Amino acid sequence: MIELENGVFMEQVEDLSRKKLWPDVRDMLLLLEPADIAAILAEVSVDRLPLLYRLLPKELAAEVFVEMEAEEQELLIKGFSDTELKEVLDELYVDDTVDLIEEMPATVVKRILKHTDPETRKSVNEILNYPEDSAGSIMTTEFVDLKRDMTVADALKRIRRTGVDKETINICYVTDPSRHLLGLVSIRTLLLSDEDDVIEEIMETNYISASTMDDREDVAQGLKKYDFLALPVVDKESRLVGIVTIDDAIDVMEEEATEDFELMAGMSPSDKPYLRTGVVETVKSRIPWLLLLMLSATFTGIVIASFEDKLAVCSVLIGFIPMLMGTGGNCGNQSSVAVIRGLSLDEIDFDDIFRVAWKEARVAAVCGGLLSGANFVKLILVDRWLMGNSEVTVMVALAICLTLVCTVFCAKVVGAMLPLLAERVGLDPAVLAAPFISTIVDVLSLLIYFRFASLLLGL
Amino acid sequence: MIELENGVFMEQVEDLSRKKLWPDVRDMLLLLEPADIAAILAEVSVDRLPLLYRLLPKELAAEVFVEMEAEEQELLIKGFSDTELKEVLDELYVDDTVDLIEEMPATVVKRILKHTDPETRKSVNEILNYPEDSAGSIMTTEFVDLKRDMTVADALKRIRRTGVDKETINICYVTDPSRHLLGLVSIRTLLLSDEDDVIEEIMETNYISASTMDDREDVAQGLKKYDFLALPVVDKESRLVGIVTIDDAIDVMEEEATEDFELMAGMSPSDKPYLRTGVVETVKSRIPWLLLLMLSATFTGIVIASFEDKLAVCSVLIGFIPMLMGTGGNCGNQSSVAVIRGLSLDEIDFDDIFRVAWKEARVAAVCGGLLSGANFVKLILVDRWLMGNSEVTVMVALAICLTLVCTVFCAKVVGAMLPLLAERVGLDPAVLAAPFISTIVDVLSLLIYFRFASLLLGL
Repeated sequence: MIELENGVFMEQVEDLSRKKLWPDVRDMLLLLEPADIAAILAEVSVDRLPLLYRLLPKELAAEVFVEMEAEEQELLIKGFSDTELKEVLDELYVDDTVDLIEEMPATVVKRILKHTDPETRKSVNEILNYPEDSAGSIMTTEFVDLKRDMTVADALKRIRRTGVDKETINICYVTDPSRHLLGLVSIRTLLLSDEDDVIEEIMETNYISASTMDDREDVAQGLKKYDFLALPVVDKESRLVGIVTIDDAIDVMEEEATEDFELMAGMSPSDKPYLRTGVVETVKSRIPWLLLLMLSATFTGIVIASFEDKLAVCSVLIGFIPMLMGTGGNCGNQSSVAVIRGLSLDEIDFDDIFRVAWKEARVAAVCGGLLSGANFVKLILVDRWLMGNSEVTVMVALAICLTLVCTVFCAKVVGAMLPLLAERVGLDPAVLAAPFISTIVDVLSLLIYFRFASLLLGL
Repeated sequence: MIELENGVFMEQVEDLSRKKLWPDVRDMLLLLEPADIAAILAEVSVDRLPLLYRLLPKELAAEVFVEMEAEEQELLIKGFSDTELKEVLDELYVDDTVDLIEEMPATVVKRILKHTDPETRKSVNEILNYPEDSAGSIMTTEFVDLKRDMTVADALKRIRRTGVDKETINICYVTDPSRHLLGLVSIRTLLLSDEDDVIEEIMETNYISASTMDDREDVAQGLKKYDFLALPVVDKESRLVGIVTIDDAIDVMEEEATEDFELMAGMSPSDKPYLRTGVVETVKSRIPWLLLLMLSATFTGIVIASFEDKLAVCSVLIGFIPMLMGTGGNCGNQSSVAVIRGLSLDEIDFDDIFRVAWKEARVAAVCGGLLSGANFVKLILVDRWLMGNSEVTVMVALAICLTLVCTVFCAKVVGAMLPLLAERVGLDPAVLAAPFISTIVDVLSLLIYFRFASLLLGL
């Protein structure tokens, strides 16, 4: 049931619009959640979009608007009358207005700011001033604040009066007259308390808060770790300035995971969905890494070139180069991804470096042993004996297998250490992942291979 | 502030415990959130763990227990008296009990089931019967249910009476006498309505629900997509059997992302944190993939071997093999990761296959052009002219650059298509990611390279 049949709805909406049966289209849309309506509107033709959007009742229209992609939002705003724009903006939460402004071109932003009420505009400007990856930039300023000397009945009355405009009423914040945060009360505690209880006595004073300048990723992980639905954000003077709600935290977590995926695959992070990113934009995010990696692959070329003459003599060695480099790369990749993920989930930090190294060293020893054992058997049984390739001598097999053991060891240790060192010096560990590590491992494995070949085969 | 100084706390707890100042240890622990207390208890010595745990007040103790890792939970349970065990179990939510049972060995499970009350045991058994990745397996059965003819005042009274034991009161569920779900009411709606309003009139009948057998990943994505705090789960007869709350959905999302990371790096997914996984377990999750990939790397070996004699004649070609294979692998990796991530985030599905192919083809054309252009200039200017390597002729450079164009194209298209096809036939797209795609691309790039070399250099 989760997977709504948007395709089916889409066709019906198309069909009814073609017949201009607007009330029917409206009734159909009213059955859906805002996110689904937004998805359907994203598919209709550009000239029909404003028409369909105007069918929606005011409040729902704003909810749908929030769920839309920037392109459609811009299109709609450009078609809005001033009154229509104001109506939508009045319904938006402050953090949604901020998101909108961040996506729109300057002229549209100007118009948006002109039509937001002064108080919201002040909050919006405040949030826009925080750095992009900070807690301040993802918070909302619309929360329920209570006073310590209120009774539960007073508090409930206040929530009833002001709650409509707040992003969440599930957790309320108790502040003193100069806005310092004193404690939290959940709506559950309020409902389960007596009407005459005083807030001060039931509030949780032992709370966790974020500071406006904290990294948004840490804040999101905090919400997850403590199973909170919202986290208060305070400024340098410990005054409550906003809250980060769980839905925004989830978005941050997914964005950060996507960023890690992209970095690990050697792409600059993009914040647009795959099909919304144009060809030029996609090329821009991919080409610098490809060029860089191609450049670093020339190192392996240099190593091979320096050994070229000897390879020409014992050409059977050439065929095993891809396997050795590939296995090294795969081993390094495994360790680096395990460590990078551990770092993002806060399971590991730099202080664990020796535990990580010790673990990877043992894993590498076992993996290296198993892989080279299997390979030795395969080389002698299959290549030499079954296929009758007399060039694969025991010494050749030995050179290959010793290279495997050493390469796997280096790959796993380098793969695990580099992300930790990157984290230490303040780089994103994912930047140093797969592509870079495999370049290092490639060069290492070739050097080891040629060294063993020289030693054992007298080249 | 998010990043609690657990290290500092840890030392103080250690210090106070050594001096046996138990009330001080207790006061110190009481300042912390359950998740942090669990983290500290995970670090203390095994014989001191039960002692410190017993300092905690009953309710907090249960919350800390839930946050602990399986090893410590088992240790504690084995030390618990029957009364202690019962006390902890009584405080757990049903879904936490299920999680616990899934982690414990059979003897401990038997003891746990013996001491849970019959009603909880029934719910636990029900949840345990659902397949591992289903919505049913992550739901809880403790929700607030209301009747359609209740007034808001009745409803609030019911929440006050039963809410303590419910996992969430933020959303309440309206059911008929045979437990069919009729609608939802948020606590916000309840509070903002008049006391005499009837539930039937204010409930949201246009809700989204999951079925017990839905994939838990889809359910988690649903909660995110619609910004819900909980989602009702119904059985085949549309009877409400449980709810999935946002905290469990977040755990699912992170687990699934971690699984994707692991699969993409060629590791079998593990559900334990990095440092908790033993060497043997880690080797087991990595070695099958390494063996498989090593085996498939022998294909590249075979391709090279078949060209060995010609490579011996024109040995300059050997040095560029790693760069060509590497660039192909990186390009394939970029596309496959972009598509796999798009699939997990529901931004792409199989029906988009032509749009994806068309996009990647264009991106590949541009990237291939740029890379081979840059490479041609580098080969002629640096390798031939600056380094005086006369073996790098224009024809050699041409063979390399044409190979690049074709390899990049194949890599990007294969990288983007394979995950989509995997999804289509019901495989996890991440399984077909980086390692497999690069094996295919490796073989392709060698074949293309040797073909162009033969044609242009007359080998």
